[in-house]
Amino acid sequence: MELRKDPVTRSWVVVGERDEAAPPAESCPFCPGTESGQTLLRLPAEGPWRVRVTPHLTPLYRIEGEVGRAAEGIYDKMRSVGAHEIVIETPEHDRRLSRLPDDAIEMVFEAYRRRIADLKRDLRFKYATALKNQGRPAAAEWAHAHSEIIATTFVPRRVLYELRASKAYFEEKERCVFCDIVRQEERGETRVVDTQGDYVAFCPYASRVPFETWILPRKHNYQFEFPRPEARRRNFAALTGRMLRRLEQISDAYHMVLHTSPNTLVKRAGPAEHWKTIADDYHWHLEILPILPSGSRSYALKEVYFNGILPEDSAKRLRALEASL
Amino acid sequence: MELRKDPVTRSWVVVGERDEAAPPAESCPFCPGTESGQTLLRLPAEGPWRVRVTPHLTPLYRIEGEVGRAAEGIYDKMRSVGAHEIVIETPEHDRRLSRLPDDAIEMVFEAYRRRIADLKRDLRFKYATALKNQGRPAAAEWAHAHSEIIATTFVPRRVLYELRASKAYFEEKERCVFCDIVRQEERGETRVVDTQGDYVAFCPYASRVPFETWILPRKHNYQFEFPRPEARRRNFAALTGRMLRRLEQISDAYHMVLHTSPNTLVKRAGPAEHWKTIADDYHWHLEILPILPSGSRSYALKEVYFNGILPEDSAKRLRALEASL
Repeated sequence: MELRKDPVTRSWVVVGERDEAAPPAESCPFCPGTESGQTLLRLPAEGPWRVRVTPHLTPLYRIEGEVGRAAEGIYDKMRSVGAHEIVIETPEHDRRLSRLPDDAIEMVFEAYRRRIADLKRDLRFKYATALKNQGRPAAAEWAHAHSEIIATTFVPRRVLYELRASKAYFEEKERCVFCDIVRQEERGETRVVDTQGDYVAFCPYASRVPFETWILPRKHNYQFEFPRPEARRRNFAALTGRMLRRLEQISDAYHMVLHTSPNTLVKRAGPAEHWKTIADDYHWHLEILPILPSGSRSYALKEVYFNGILPEDSAKRLRALEASL
Repeated sequence: MELRKDPVTRSWVVVGERDEAAPPAESCPFCPGTESGQTLLRLPAEGPWRVRVTPHLTPLYRIEGEVGRAAEGIYDKMRSVGAHEIVIETPEHDRRLSRLPDDAIEMVFEAYRRRIADLKRDLRFKYATALKNQGRPAAAEWAHAHSEIIATTFVPRRVLYELRASKAYFEEKERCVFCDIVRQEERGETRVVDTQGDYVAFCPYASRVPFETWILPRKHNYQFEFPRPEARRRNFAALTGRMLRRLEQISDAYHMVLHTSPNTLVKRAGPAEHWKTIADDYHWHLEILPILPSGSRSYALKEVYFNGILPEDSAKRLRALEASL
């Protein structure tokens, strides 16, 4: 497996055969008692675990070795070096993330936070994040509730576009584009679905799919992995739990992706000015993209998104749905 | 329906409810004798038609009116003005594009060419192209063989990224990146599947999906809609037909999208220097993306593509397949 850069769009693609998945074991590889793999993190530290992080069984990226950047004629490639881990969200085989109590959801996010902070210490990695594929249509690989931690030697395509645009916006206006978005959404209210403490959940103005939802901190902050007091962590977990319970009444499957700042702060340790600029530009957020039957999907793959439901209508429907556990 | 610009990634999304599709008629709306809608183009001009272009029955874009660019607070929007047409590829209800003789495929591409050239005369439109969704998994809307012509008041996301990168490449190297790609592919041969006359078909180095195929003119040319001698048109049609017949043995469904230069040449009619630069930068090409069962799909929606089969292996398998009609 290797990473190849598309010379036209300049984005990296993982190509090559993935290891064969082991034949499905008779027992779940994530359940207590039959769990397999090294434990990279467990929460709480003592007693029976409630959240556990382990290396991915068939990783797309491998932790060992040099990045090995090389040319192949006009093309660029590198080894598929990175981290690919599984966060087992609960010991209970049949319990969904959305059905966990707030303190347990908080613990899952705390596992994300610690693993991302830890991986960002590895200077080979330019980016580290967490994502979750819920349900078969989202290509979830196991039934037991889990999410993934990924660290890469490049900044993923969409995040790179966001970084470039938020930098340009900041340079022009001296304001963070996400802060401006939050202010306008909270004033307008039509696309806001729910809020708690310092966090707001809304359907973005140019939603790519119906019921797309972003959860953001109201106050500017560029990194998810920054340690926060328990009350704030709990607010974020509770709000996310309510949003997932709403969204699952619309669609059983979704992608959830965390966008946080890249790992370039450490590497370009130089002038404080540069450090400050990146910290000013970007604003971490959680994106949730429900998977609906077609009609909602882009009619022209990757060229233009077509979203058949106005975000205002999505937000209205979501607000009306039951959100309690 | 309106167009909204994502302030973070700066790409346009079509949002809002599409007209309800008419209840399926008892007769096919595209078959000779029961065909409906205005005829925008028919080929040949005399006698029974072999290719016919008509407005889309439930268009995403409407041809009438002003673009109506406006702000909504910090957001940008405009009316969904554009063209959305259907190319009926054959009078035969059950015949696929890939199963047409070369001269009939040539006529389909000639219809693309004429409609794109015609739409580019409308200075409201920044981009005009053709695309085809083959099969249900590709969200094809009708059984009768058809493709779509689309003209938009913006340059679609992926094309914009291509344009930016190919411009930067040209500025640095004074060579077209696509010309460099063609030269390297023809030297290496491992990813070339087939050639005819001035055209080459290959699986690109950083293919996003297994069996992704691009068909390019070997000689630099930035616009598909440029009129060409019949022999060259026939070469392109014959090569594309063979590629589709190969690909359909791998997957029944695919997206096919034409990428051609944007419609900015006319609008910024100014200095010849500028005109020349765009013409130097870009290189039209046809992209075909087969839809395979999952495993091939990106595991992290839109963030990073994962392609489980090396393009060299895809090309090798495709070369070995029967391509004759």
